[in-house]
Amino acid sequence: MKMILKGGTLVTAAEMFRADILIEGEKIAMIGTDLPISEDTQVVDVSNRLILPGGVDPHTHFDLPMFGTVSSDDHYTGHKAAAFGGTTTVIDFVPLEDEGIEKSVALWREKADPKAAIDFSFHMNISRLDAQIQAEIPYLAGMGITSLKVFSAYNNRLRLSDENIFRVMRIARDLGFLTMLHAENGDVIELLIAEALAAGHTTPEWHALTRPAWTAVEAVLRGAALAAMAEAPLYIVHMNAAGEVDQLAYARDRGLPVMGETCPQYLFFTIDHLRRPDGAKWVCSPPMRTTEDNERLWQGLEKGILQVVGTDHCPFFFDGTKAILYEGQPVAIPGKELGKKDFTKIPNGLPAIGDRLPVLWSEGVASGRLTPSQFVALTSTNPAKIFGLYPRKGSLMPGADADIVVWDARRVVEYGVAKSHHRTDYNLFEGWTLTGFPEKVFLRGNLIVDGDQWLGKAGMGRFVQRSSHNPVL
Amino acid sequence: MKMILKGGTLVTAAEMFRADILIEGEKIAMIGTDLPISEDTQVVDVSNRLILPGGVDPHTHFDLPMFGTVSSDDHYTGHKAAAFGGTTTVIDFVPLEDEGIEKSVALWREKADPKAAIDFSFHMNISRLDAQIQAEIPYLAGMGITSLKVFSAYNNRLRLSDENIFRVMRIARDLGFLTMLHAENGDVIELLIAEALAAGHTTPEWHALTRPAWTAVEAVLRGAALAAMAEAPLYIVHMNAAGEVDQLAYARDRGLPVMGETCPQYLFFTIDHLRRPDGAKWVCSPPMRTTEDNERLWQGLEKGILQVVGTDHCPFFFDGTKAILYEGQPVAIPGKELGKKDFTKIPNGLPAIGDRLPVLWSEGVASGRLTPSQFVALTSTNPAKIFGLYPRKGSLMPGADADIVVWDARRVVEYGVAKSHHRTDYNLFEGWTLTGFPEKVFLRGNLIVDGDQWLGKAGMGRFVQRSSHNPVL
Amino acid sequence: MKMILKGGTLVTAAEMFRADILIEGEKIAMIGTDLPISEDTQVVDVSNRLILPGGVDPHTHFDLPMFGTVSSDDHYTGHKAAAFGGTTTVIDFVPLEDEGIEKSVALWREKADPKAAIDFSFHMNISRLDAQIQAEIPYLAGMGITSLKVFSAYNNRLRLSDENIFRVMRIARDLGFLTMLHAENGDVIELLIAEALAAGHTTPEWHALTRPAWTAVEAVLRGAALAAMAEAPLYIVHMNAAGEVDQLAYARDRGLPVMGETCPQYLFFTIDHLRRPDGAKWVCSPPMRTTEDNERLWQGLEKGILQVVGTDHCPFFFDGTKAILYEGQPVAIPGKELGKKDFTKIPNGLPAIGDRLPVLWSEGVASGRLTPSQFVALTSTNPAKIFGLYPRKGSLMPGADADIVVWDARRVVEYGVAKSHHRTDYNLFEGWTLTGFPEKVFLRGNLIVDGDQWLGKAGMGRFVQRSSHNPVL
Amino acid sequence: MKMILKGGTLVTAAEMFRADILIEGEKIAMIGTDLPISEDTQVVDVSNRLILPGGVDPHTHFDLPMFGTVSSDDHYTGHKAAAFGGTTTVIDFVPLEDEGIEKSVALWREKADPKAAIDFSFHMNISRLDAQIQAEIPYLAGMGITSLKVFSAYNNRLRLSDENIFRVMRIARDLGFLTMLHAENGDVIELLIAEALAAGHTTPEWHALTRPAWTAVEAVLRGAALAAMAEAPLYIVHMNAAGEVDQLAYARDRGLPVMGETCPQYLFFTIDHLRRPDGAKWVCSPPMRTTEDNERLWQGLEKGILQVVGTDHCPFFFDGTKAILYEGQPVAIPGKELGKKDFTKIPNGLPAIGDRLPVLWSEGVASGRLTPSQFVALTSTNPAKIFGLYPRKGSLMPGADADIVVWDARRVVEYGVAKSHHRTDYNLFEGWTLTGFPEKVFLRGNLIVDGDQWLGKAGMGRFVQRSSHNPVL
Ligand SMILES: [Zn+2]
Ligand SMILES: [Zn+2]
Ligand SMILES: [Zn+2]
Ligand SMILES: [Zn+2]
Ligand SMILES: [Zn+2]
Ligand SMILES: [Zn+2]
Ligand SMILES: [Zn+2]
Ligand SMILES: [Zn+2]
Repeated sequence: MKMILKGGTLVTAAEMFRADILIEGEKIAMIGTDLPISEDTQVVDVSNRLILPGGVDPHTHFDLPMFGTVSSDDHYTGHKAAAFGGTTTVIDFVPLEDEGIEKSVALWREKADPKAAIDFSFHMNISRLDAQIQAEIPYLAGMGITSLKVFSAYNNRLRLSDENIFRVMRIARDLGFLTMLHAENGDVIELLIAEALAAGHTTPEWHALTRPAWTAVEAVLRGAALAAMAEAPLYIVHMNAAGEVDQLAYARDRGLPVMGETCPQYLFFTIDHLRRPDGAKWVCSPPMRTTEDNERLWQGLEKGILQVVGTDHCPFFFDGTKAILYEGQPVAIPGKELGKKDFTKIPNGLPAIGDRLPVLWSEGVASGRLTPSQFVALTSTNPAKIFGLYPRKGSLMPGADADIVVWDARRVVEYGVAKSHHRTDYNLFEGWTLTGFPEKVFLRGNLIVDGDQWLGKAGMGRFVQRSSHNPVL
Repeated sequence: MKMILKGGTLVTAAEMFRADILIEGEKIAMIGTDLPISEDTQVVDVSNRLILPGGVDPHTHFDLPMFGTVSSDDHYTGHKAAAFGGTTTVIDFVPLEDEGIEKSVALWREKADPKAAIDFSFHMNISRLDAQIQAEIPYLAGMGITSLKVFSAYNNRLRLSDENIFRVMRIARDLGFLTMLHAENGDVIELLIAEALAAGHTTPEWHALTRPAWTAVEAVLRGAALAAMAEAPLYIVHMNAAGEVDQLAYARDRGLPVMGETCPQYLFFTIDHLRRPDGAKWVCSPPMRTTEDNERLWQGLEKGILQVVGTDHCPFFFDGTKAILYEGQPVAIPGKELGKKDFTKIPNGLPAIGDRLPVLWSEGVASGRLTPSQFVALTSTNPAKIFGLYPRKGSLMPGADADIVVWDARRVVEYGVAKSHHRTDYNLFEGWTLTGFPEKVFLRGNLIVDGDQWLGKAGMGRFVQRSSHNPVL
Repeated sequence: MKMILKGGTLVTAAEMFRADILIEGEKIAMIGTDLPISEDTQVVDVSNRLILPGGVDPHTHFDLPMFGTVSSDDHYTGHKAAAFGGTTTVIDFVPLEDEGIEKSVALWREKADPKAAIDFSFHMNISRLDAQIQAEIPYLAGMGITSLKVFSAYNNRLRLSDENIFRVMRIARDLGFLTMLHAENGDVIELLIAEALAAGHTTPEWHALTRPAWTAVEAVLRGAALAAMAEAPLYIVHMNAAGEVDQLAYARDRGLPVMGETCPQYLFFTIDHLRRPDGAKWVCSPPMRTTEDNERLWQGLEKGILQVVGTDHCPFFFDGTKAILYEGQPVAIPGKELGKKDFTKIPNGLPAIGDRLPVLWSEGVASGRLTPSQFVALTSTNPAKIFGLYPRKGSLMPGADADIVVWDARRVVEYGVAKSHHRTDYNLFEGWTLTGFPEKVFLRGNLIVDGDQWLGKAGMGRFVQRSSHNPVL
Repeated sequence: MKMILKGGTLVTAAEMFRADILIEGEKIAMIGTDLPISEDTQVVDVSNRLILPGGVDPHTHFDLPMFGTVSSDDHYTGHKAAAFGGTTTVIDFVPLEDEGIEKSVALWREKADPKAAIDFSFHMNISRLDAQIQAEIPYLAGMGITSLKVFSAYNNRLRLSDENIFRVMRIARDLGFLTMLHAENGDVIELLIAEALAAGHTTPEWHALTRPAWTAVEAVLRGAALAAMAEAPLYIVHMNAAGEVDQLAYARDRGLPVMGETCPQYLFFTIDHLRRPDGAKWVCSPPMRTTEDNERLWQGLEKGILQVVGTDHCPFFFDGTKAILYEGQPVAIPGKELGKKDFTKIPNGLPAIGDRLPVLWSEGVASGRLTPSQFVALTSTNPAKIFGLYPRKGSLMPGADADIVVWDARRVVEYGVAKSHHRTDYNLFEGWTLTGFPEKVFLRGNLIVDGDQWLGKAGMGRFVQRSSHNPVL
């Protein structure tokens, strides 16, 4: 199978130029001016369109059990929404089960493999560090998993002690793996939550009030300090506070190999959204902050302090007692209503994977804050490089997988739940008018999204083995 | 009893001017130009001399049991050395005994009261936080103790969890107390020490290598963050790394009520001193760093980022098997030699209390980096204000205790163990030529040091009740 | 004559303590607890009052010809307003006449001496630098004038070239004088003004629009760079932009001997005030900026980046066609109405000298941003030190001139033109409710203000010879 | 003509990947994995080699009259040296003649066109701004020249007043041109030079001592401020002081459209080199600074504060009385010896164009400070974009000119005058061992350098029309 995307303008992480792309099988084979067209070549006219490498979202939680329910997008529905939003590769987090790493990965593969509609990989949560886990970590490379996630919050559940975070970093360093950190101070948060509940505070706003930004700010520097001493690279997930950006800049200015990710929701929303009657829609961890934090995150993106925009996609229904129609079938999954009377019972997470590219383009590129190349770097090339997917993913260059988004920069879309294809009943960007939208999406040469039409299917997505020893950006 | 110090130049934390001082009893009664001299008034000619308020050292450890021995200055010998160095008030740390706070304070008073030769107060170490301790803390105000010391290092010995440090801060805030923090990351340090020992590393240098600066830097921001969230003031002891100064500045620039102390040893020495054959002399915690750290600390003093120069005085003999003569008697106290084969067994601490003023004047004021007023602020007025001793201590103004140092700014002294009066067998500044030295020292109007002559005596020092709700500088 | 101020709380630049003050003749003779009262001693009860050193305002323009009129306060009325506001020493700028320095100073003395109601000194404007001027500058020391003012704006009127500013700095350095800089980029301003006029823009707002903050920001660094190369101290007047504070901090962090002054008007007002119908009231140079600039200036005061709050007092009538009653007589002086049709004809300047202390106390100290000691430093001790008046002025210590303000920190005042005693028809703080106000003001031991009563008189003020070689703060 | 470069690894400003390149005529036509080889296609094996876009040097002075002599590389010899060093496009500065812009450009074209061996463009020096010049500037677009150079130094020769710099910036903005600034304070420099000469200082060191770094630091912020007010982009040439980098960062952090260039010489050398017996070799303006400045410039490159490494290539003979052999002919051009007795007569400038890529690769990339992609960005893609040459130059993408460097990253070269091909008798990097070197250089598909072999010729280079309205990086 040969296909030529003809007449588009390619956008890479540094350049923009007019060229045709030849796809052979699953790969990009050539790019050129006026590529010759043989008989067996299908030609797709993409003139007046931008050609972007498929988005890479390194932070998703599909089908994740939480608080007696489960995140409402599974590895099929989440992949589909991703694809509609221009994302063709995701990296999901594997919860660590009692049986250990191998079993945990196997379980997650079982859930994901048959459903996968786009390409995917896994990060391994290291939420305990005993002899078994230490023995198993090196085998992750063989499983194609080269990143370890640790938490400085969620005491008695996910949190590792500083000692163990430090140990994990050194193990990761020796293996060429990357350590990822959820950076919050668990001690303070647990105490504030207990006190809030004791004081009868139950509303969503208290989700934010019990997780102050300073818990995250200090944890970022703590993580960076541990990384400095472990001589190991570090990736800090879902940064959302101005002070976090300050501390990341501080660490990077001192030459530390620390990188940072933010997510769309943190660029726009604040604690005031949690105070709305439907505030539970915005409950995720870490929480929404202030407009000053929004602004400093944008600066972080513009100045290259932050390297990645991911999503932490982990949607729940706002009202899981009422079914929605999904692919024609009614679906209802218990969601935010579980926490109506107690903010600690609101499932933590929100839909974002489909929103990431359209929202960031509209508010970032169309508004003039980011260049198209910065957009590609933040959403595709950088995460691909950081997580060992490059140059297979994150690139439009010959040899790369033909994961391609045909982007219509002029398209104006009334956005919202109807457009976003998440399997949930709300969208944070409901009613926003977006400029710029994916028109066609190719996964390894296969057209899986064509306008509003879904051409993908479960099982089409492949697990991607990732490499280790990747650059620090 | 009336006495006039005639013809000197008074130095306060902001001013320098020629005036006489009238002392009545234990107090400064007047300052004036050409004070009238009545018959019953003793006149001391202090022309061509500077008049400073007696030094206030808020960080000492007298008679402190450690590693099977004890710090070699007790509340008498340490006070005497302090006085010779121009310090007339000290605040010592009370170790928390199993029996609780009241008993611990009583014990420490028993040791100190009969020996005290200058005025003194106590900080209370909060090295555990159970129901009893929580119940006892409020009673400290009645004991005249309004500061609580916590540790983020020394796991399983002195360390509190972040949760408990946060709790202590809030208790302190409600009582108008000040929380003091020893800021290092205990987890990393314990691990590095265990690994160093396992690898057969035994030399003093490893004391520094197992306590990297980043353990302190992150702990400073962690402390500041906890203080921000507790809405409580914080005082960080013995700051010694450039990054600590950076983070203190960061916190203060954001309006946080955080203050910092450094000590003379951290302004001059580096890890290279630990590598000398007699490196054990420089073993204290936190350890000596680099010349870049020295320099940044000086900047911190000049720019007002740091507010206090204390000492963390906690001396040990370098060779405790050999007696020295002290007040004519041979004295030998096991010391640094205990760690000859294992750096973790070297008693942590060093002599400094007598060195503080002469060394800081010579290297700070005589060299032009600090003004005399900055010197007075850093060594006397600021600690007096911060710890609730002001205006009784730290001031030359009428109403203040007549704790006065007659300072000879022109005196050149060959400094060292012979001059410093510490009860130990070495001095870190051995062989240094210092410019500027105390000539006479008055404690509450009593001349206790006159040149090389000691006129003080045990029991003369009084425990000073401190007030709460003091300013954040 | 002896007088005791009894029972007050003295505030110095670093301390606050209860003490009595004995005034003998024109000097403070003693301070003490319960000073003995002899028969010939008058006792003034100042209990429950603060005792401050009289304010020193180093930036005034009395009786200054401008745009065909003259600033409406002369050396009497301005001094009187100063006194009512707690200021007892002012330093006025001497315009450089064609005849040279000696003649210019003589002229200004002639105007000032008979009218002076408080103590005063002069700065010398160096608005040209020819051989005569260079020859005359050294004689200024003998006239008691040790500061030179230069301008980087007002092309063809006051401006010196960078070369000549640099030359002046080196001359000043050699003489121990201080150079003061009005820092704006004259080139850009003249061009923008010409263009604005050509485009028919006439309203007061255009006064600000034609003097953008960047003209000042760059000129501050330019001044600091020239000072660095001249190895000379520099004092930048009327700083009013956030970027100026940034650049001053940058220079000072690099060890440059640069100091900065701001004025009350720049802490509160913005270009929006110029857009009011009575916007001309706020026309002065440099102009009002934005709330972000206000805020950064406050930070500059709090952090010690700025050392002085002066006023640049240079009032004009808002409507000089209508007389006001001044000391019972109708007075009308052409003022802001001159520029009704052309913003470049609005006399530049505004009333401030009487507002300085009450407004800064109320908004700075009563609000908790500044301590009383910071207030004293910024308004009295620092300018006295910087300009060679200390310890005669700026101090409450024995030997100082008995320039004393009895301050009622609890007094609440409805402020405005009626209260401010400026000889003009408006006040920028009209209708503000201030907390804290001067109750009594002494000039060299003479009570010149007692509540609302004026006890001073023309000729009472003395010209103060200033010293050279003063500290850089 | 078709040619395939087969088996190399392409380096773009953001990516590195293995691909073949097809050149058709003068253009890159395709890049692909295993491009099909037709009969008429020449294949060049570049396996194990990196493929870089040809270097773009935006700062050269060929054949420039100065101090009675002329820079010793003309548009042929300089182009040839550039090519040997991997540079295929240069932008030279056109001196402004009395006759005006059109004539000046024509003259420079006359000199350059017949000699040009690589592609080239011009910047226009605006060293006066009268009515004629203002009238002519818009016609530069038609001449393909879209950048204007102004000077804040060289009083009475090249300098424009701030007013005129500001005017030029606004003219440039309206035309989509870019203003370039030589940023030094001319006033101070002229004065210091006059004084140095008067004092009998004649040695090269005084070239640096009379141009202190602060003259440049302030001029950078001044330039940025003017740009801010003109709302125009600015490019600051040959930045060489730490403070310049600080101020550029300050300006960029505030969102100003300011960019900066440094040159290889400023990354390595200091005033100490001027103190050598052959110090005249290092005389250029601005002068060599300190190692701290070197280090901060490196940081500027690493962090993206600086966007471009150019050269300011302007070579002179060290001893122009002795001929060298150039292409077999003896050549001697008066040079540095002209200033043997007077540093102001040493021709300002040095050879660098051939050194730029090899030295920056060896010390930047091989040493690990820069990635290959950063190297490409700094030396080729960024200057191409900034100056309107992109995507024709600075890119390896289809449609770009086939200006290609085959880079041997493993090649070790003993560098120096023999290797550098500049027409002069010395090289600043004499005796350095470099790692990484150009192996083959193509200009629009023509092999012009093959190892040590020169295949280019005069007249082969073309004047490139540049576009306006380019991005600010
Ligand atoms: Zn998380
Ligand atoms: Zn997550
Ligand atoms: Zn400690
Ligand atoms: Zn201690
Ligand atoms: Zn002015
Ligand atoms: Zn003025
Ligand atoms: Zn230049
Ligand atoms: Zn040049």
